[in-house]
Amino acid sequence: MAAITYEHIKTCKQSGARLGIVHTPHGSFETPMFMPVGTLATVKTMSPEDLKDMGAKIILSNTYHLWLRPGHDIIKEAGGLHKFMNWDRPILTDSGGFQVFSLSDMRKITEEGVEFKNHLNGERLFLSPEKCMSIQNDLGPDIMMAFDECPPYPAEYDYMKASVERTTRWAERCIKSHARPDEQGLFGIVQGGEYEELRRQSANDLIAMDFPGYAIGGLSVGEPKDVMNRVLEYTTPLLPQDKPRYLMGVGSPDSLVDGAIRGIDMFDCVLPTRIARNGTLMTSEGRLVVRNAKYARDFRPIDENCSCHVCQNYSRAYIRHLVKCSETFGFRLTTYHNLHFLLTLMENVRTAIREDRLLDFREEFFEMYGFNKPNAKNF
Amino acid sequence: MAAITYEHIKTCKQSGARLGIVHTPHGSFETPMFMPVGTLATVKTMSPEDLKDMGAKIILSNTYHLWLRPGHDIIKEAGGLHKFMNWDRPILTDSGGFQVFSLSDMRKITEEGVEFKNHLNGERLFLSPEKCMSIQNDLGPDIMMAFDECPPYPAEYDYMKASVERTTRWAERCIKSHARPDEQGLFGIVQGGEYEELRRQSANDLIAMDFPGYAIGGLSVGEPKDVMNRVLEYTTPLLPQDKPRYLMGVGSPDSLVDGAIRGIDMFDCVLPTRIARNGTLMTSEGRLVVRNAKYARDFRPIDENCSCHVCQNYSRAYIRHLVKCSETFGFRLTTYHNLHFLLTLMENVRTAIREDRLLDFREEFFEMYGFNKPNAKNF
Ligand SMILES: [Zn+2]
Ligand SMILES: [Zn+2]
Repeated sequence: MAAITYEHIKTCKQSGARLGIVHTPHGSFETPMFMPVGTLATVKTMSPEDLKDMGAKIILSNTYHLWLRPGHDIIKEAGGLHKFMNWDRPILTDSGGFQVFSLSDMRKITEEGVEFKNHLNGERLFLSPEKCMSIQNDLGPDIMMAFDECPPYPAEYDYMKASVERTTRWAERCIKSHARPDEQGLFGIVQGGEYEELRRQSANDLIAMDFPGYAIGGLSVGEPKDVMNRVLEYTTPLLPQDKPRYLMGVGSPDSLVDGAIRGIDMFDCVLPTRIARNGTLMTSEGRLVVRNAKYARDFRPIDENCSCHVCQNYSRAYIRHLVKCSETFGFRLTTYHNLHFLLTLMENVRTAIREDRLLDFREEFFEMYGFNKPNAKNF
Repeated sequence: MAAITYEHIKTCKQSGARLGIVHTPHGSFETPMFMPVGTLATVKTMSPEDLKDMGAKIILSNTYHLWLRPGHDIIKEAGGLHKFMNWDRPILTDSGGFQVFSLSDMRKITEEGVEFKNHLNGERLFLSPEKCMSIQNDLGPDIMMAFDECPPYPAEYDYMKASVERTTRWAERCIKSHARPDEQGLFGIVQGGEYEELRRQSANDLIAMDFPGYAIGGLSVGEPKDVMNRVLEYTTPLLPQDKPRYLMGVGSPDSLVDGAIRGIDMFDCVLPTRIARNGTLMTSEGRLVVRNAKYARDFRPIDENCSCHVCQNYSRAYIRHLVKCSETFGFRLTTYHNLHFLLTLMENVRTAIREDRLLDFREEFFEMYGFNKPNAKNF
């Protein structure tokens, strides 16, 4: 029995978006779904109860960061990440590849793996497909990611081709060294940048290995939105209908809707939590920077259309006061609201798929949020 | 009808400690009671739900800090502090006197009031009894404190006598200018340092003004514990039996028990929350510095005798990891446990009073915590 299975419920007749259910050893969740990011075994400022209360069904945590702090051995000894952090719903861990390529200095890529200096103390470390699997087997998430190279954007065709082929060879080694396939599902990561031919090559290579799910990597790395959408348009049709598809690192409201329309089931991003800690909020009527002086005496909720606990009990004036004073509780409130906003957006997307009207929903949502304005901000 | 009344339940036959109930416009609470401190209209890292869940019945907030940020006018416009911060149980605000005398530079005391520079931007401000009452009337707490001078420790007799007499004159002006006596109870503050004669003079002067409650100020300012206990021993008997007595700024476990034994009903202190944010915990077996390396693989709860949500769900190893990474959730967990610890201690004190065995309880508690050891730390 595979650890991870995908149950297809229906396809939106208007948009082609998929409604489904992903089943994992720690329960099931409907898709399309957004996954809050809990980098260091905590979604910053939130408790597990907060996350459940807002409707989070699966969270992501970062292999690279947990490897360094507190160490995968400690988490294994604790009985795995679920027990360590008191979260009994599904967890996905990334491969660490993205952090190795974005955070660390002096990396050296060889066929064997990547040598690099860690971002905390400069200590020299080595990550390979086997090491990456071993760490994720110790962490014990429901969904693991294969170790891939994350090439920069833009990258030359020849570099990208070599990189895609190495990622394929690394994926094979990941499958081979994955020690707990009955308890943890390993997803392959399709790379290839903006080269359709390489995306096809990567997808075909990985599909031949029969992963229980596929991620699309190398997007949301600085390319324009229309490039991302175009890549999705020719990549998702290559992927099997009966496996979940995960678009990595995407969390702006417009991209979540546009990704779902292009057949994506799962998303993650630090965006909602990161901007929350800067006092920036996502609302049904667009972004709201609660630090602004104009909110000092504004006793309305952050979002008058929001049903969340924060909007039911706290005013813009109070949250502004807390954020201005750097009070932790202010960041709890902004983080809670932003995550609730994206989780509710995905719920609305699922409802629209059910009703075969996701393109209509997109129009209404984009218009109200302000994405249709000239030079609209992306969140 | 007075805003604040004290109902005496019983006196401990063994210790003389009082069990009682304080009634306020926002509900009642049993005494002896510890009040968590919510300086800027938030108990740092905690939500109102967290506070209710741990059994907090009344919280304290700081007039000086709220006056500066966000401003008492904004809180008044919000409908008062209860509504602003979403806390519907009793609130006590201090007078701001302590902060004026401890935080700000260049203060100049005259009969009229105190001129000083604020600690945020050096702006020149003036606080008088009338201004202090006006701010607290705007904030709207259930219990307000009279504006007093907080003399340094130690202070010369002559300085202290002049200060006590000025504080008495200021107390009269506070009563006169208090605009909402039916909705907010104003407590007088007995000063006098370690001079028994001056404590008597201060108490008698204030009692003549018939406040609904009395605080003992000018303690826990650096004096040895036995000095504090001695001052309490001759001061509390001077106070009326039918009014609550509040010992300001005291929150170490031993002092809470010793204060109750000497007839104190209410306590507040930043100690449990401040040390929590440094990773220091109060446990039934003494202090625990969870940052220490020896807890890296310790999967036991912070306190094996504690019934709190934190100790039921999280390990020392996890909390250490969060604290070491400066993760907010770690400080939520340590703060929650420490406040729960002191609230539970007070509950145990009340039970011991009910059972006429508070001195026995003191012995057991001190022994287990380690207060009986030579050179014991005070928390
Ligand atoms: Zn909301
Ligand atoms: Zn506890």
